[in-house]
Amino acid sequence: MKAILIIADGLGGRPSDCGGKTCLEAARSPNLDKLARRGALGLVDPIGPGIRPGSDTAHLSLLGYNPHRVYTGRGVFECLGIGMTVQPGDVCFRANFATVTPSKEGVIVKDRRAGRIASGQDQLAEALNSIKLEKKLGIEFEFRASTQHRGALLLRGKGLSRYVTENDPHKVDVKAPEFMPVEGHDNEKTRRTAAALNELVKHSYEVLHDHPVNRQRERDEEHPANYILARGAADLPHLDSIETIYGVSGAVIAGGALYRGIALACGMERIDAPGATGGLDTDLRSKANTALKVLETLDYVFIHVKGTDNAGHDKDAKAKTTFIERIDAELISPLMERIDWKTTHLAFTGDHTTPIDYGDHTVEPVPVLFVGPNVRSDTTVALGEREAGRGGLGRFTGQVLPILFGYNNWAPKFGS
Amino acid sequence: MKAILIIADGLGGRPSDCGGKTCLEAARSPNLDKLARRGALGLVDPIGPGIRPGSDTAHLSLLGYNPHRVYTGRGVFECLGIGMTVQPGDVCFRANFATVTPSKEGVIVKDRRAGRIASGQDQLAEALNSIKLEKKLGIEFEFRASTQHRGALLLRGKGLSRYVTENDPHKVDVKAPEFMPVEGHDNEKTRRTAAALNELVKHSYEVLHDHPVNRQRERDEEHPANYILARGAADLPHLDSIETIYGVSGAVIAGGALYRGIALACGMERIDAPGATGGLDTDLRSKANTALKVLETLDYVFIHVKGTDNAGHDKDAKAKTTFIERIDAELISPLMERIDWKTTHLAFTGDHTTPIDYGDHTVEPVPVLFVGPNVRSDTTVALGEREAGRGGLGRFTGQVLPILFGYNNWAPKFGS
Repeated sequence: MKAILIIADGLGGRPSDCGGKTCLEAARSPNLDKLARRGALGLVDPIGPGIRPGSDTAHLSLLGYNPHRVYTGRGVFECLGIGMTVQPGDVCFRANFATVTPSKEGVIVKDRRAGRIASGQDQLAEALNSIKLEKKLGIEFEFRASTQHRGALLLRGKGLSRYVTENDPHKVDVKAPEFMPVEGHDNEKTRRTAAALNELVKHSYEVLHDHPVNRQRERDEEHPANYILARGAADLPHLDSIETIYGVSGAVIAGGALYRGIALACGMERIDAPGATGGLDTDLRSKANTALKVLETLDYVFIHVKGTDNAGHDKDAKAKTTFIERIDAELISPLMERIDWKTTHLAFTGDHTTPIDYGDHTVEPVPVLFVGPNVRSDTTVALGEREAGRGGLGRFTGQVLPILFGYNNWAPKFGS
Repeated sequence: MKAILIIADGLGGRPSDCGGKTCLEAARSPNLDKLARRGALGLVDPIGPGIRPGSDTAHLSLLGYNPHRVYTGRGVFECLGIGMTVQPGDVCFRANFATVTPSKEGVIVKDRRAGRIASGQDQLAEALNSIKLEKKLGIEFEFRASTQHRGALLLRGKGLSRYVTENDPHKVDVKAPEFMPVEGHDNEKTRRTAAALNELVKHSYEVLHDHPVNRQRERDEEHPANYILARGAADLPHLDSIETIYGVSGAVIAGGALYRGIALACGMERIDAPGATGGLDTDLRSKANTALKVLETLDYVFIHVKGTDNAGHDKDAKAKTTFIERIDAELISPLMERIDWKTTHLAFTGDHTTPIDYGDHTVEPVPVLFVGPNVRSDTTVALGEREAGRGGLGRFTGQVLPILFGYNNWAPKFGS
């Protein structure tokens, strides 16, 4: 048996998206509709009814983990997702290049994304990694750049703690706050961790502001990438691997680092599809081809597509609808044609609702589709939020991967 | 945005209520039906499938708290609901006037409700509050009367515990048991608390039995209110306030002390509607008007109506059906007319099922209706238990307030 899990990020919508219809309801998606007719629909609360999901916590829950118990923060998934090795005790951050101006009171953040810098990041990262923290701290670090201004930062050493605040003020023309112990966690570990971070970002300005990459940016009238902002402190969560739980092995295909990182933390392999960007411009046919290739040797594949969420955050109904139509034509259609449907189950869902008018995650459940030989089909005829509300699978919380694996008879028995 | 939560206590019913229909199904409720057509229905298990809810635990769960974790007992909500100030460490009780006869073995309970005494309770409470407990105990108390025989009792002092039994035998012509440590909780605190309570009720007979109010009652051949029964020991639960969680502020409109108390414990303001009684005779139009007034300044309002449950406990199908029709005409109709539906979401549900034949809470889920601009409408055409069973919202547990607030984009994100 083989299994395919597809999560379209931020798939869910609201009636206000497209004049009374959600983008998913409005999109022309004949292949997804065909799968709905063949399989069964339901509504899934990614983390639980009434809980507004983050992308990381929602994915953990859909993959069968309890985020209330295992979630330690986002940074660790970002580090894993861009290829860093994370060890127990390390503390990880989402980090990004920013533009600051020094002042008497501290550094003032002028641009949290350093003009969405698009080249030279690796040279800047190299400069950052040459910084030596005070020896007495006994703490090492690594910064790695990913797309545009984005990157990840890892601290390693004895006695670190993830209970430290961030230095990202989340607005501009204000001071970047100092790292501090999180309230209620003032202890030697948190103070040491915060001290190392404060020292690191201070030096980041020193090595970056006069760097050749930034001198060129200033000549080009672009914001220099002269500072590091870090947030989402996290250490390695304790996750039994999917292979340990179910005895099967699989891979993730995702353009976004976060999603690769989560999958890696669950024990999936990372397979990169050429042209997969984690954006609206991603190559969906390449993802389909890569997935089919993965299934030649592994048991399952998890395909993540991010464009739906990007369009939602951009409040662009047209882009979201078009991207769903592209998913249908360029990802679902080739998979449908080439899957052996006698031995394959497929699940298609989202990790949360991202309505157009709001442009951020909301509480409403998302539609979920299961199709394959062991699925008890229902009477639904199209994939959509309201059609899923009358689906044969009812409404449930998370657990999409375990349910999918259940159809393949891969689930461990609880009790005897 | 604005939000309205309406809980009709004990709303749910069984087919045996009205010859094959529940009272809600049998009631003529054109306005609720119109809202059902406009919005979406589901079934909510107040605390969870298979769990028979108390009113207090059900309300906590519907308001988004986990009663398994936070519930400490009912007494504290009774004290808060009748206006007492409860501090951490206080132990609170539901308490009521009863009629007892002293005997060699102890006091024998003749009437647990002192003939449903309807006047003079405040004078009796004053006499009670003049009792001085032994100084060495270092414990103070306050008794406050509410409606009829009902009231609340609060103990304050160092080293109190809520793990004490009650002195209400729940039947008549038997001895009122002594307060004792709850099994498994025999320690200095519980023994001290029980000792104070036993001393208090002993003195209650002394100050009450010959009180002028009771001498008059005996002349009128009414049962004297000559003793205090106390139950539902509870201390202050740890509840993050709704304002802390969601950043919005609102008020409760409820005739019943318990419901006001729960809402106050969650950080709502208490606003009294003139003529709201917490009974079948309540002024529902006044509640609607007060709610609309509240929404002029606050973000949300929680309206509790109790009559549905009273009729259920009285096994009176006619009264329950009529009260639901009154809710429709006198509460829902004026709200519908005067709400700005472009910017308001409304939820309507019950806190449990109270069938006519059984006259007490049962396990079955209750219908829930959500309506407003962001609700994905379904194909339901009337508000009723079975119609809700085919609603687009499926079946879920508790969390009605968080879901309602989610439609208003007020929910905090878990994860990132």
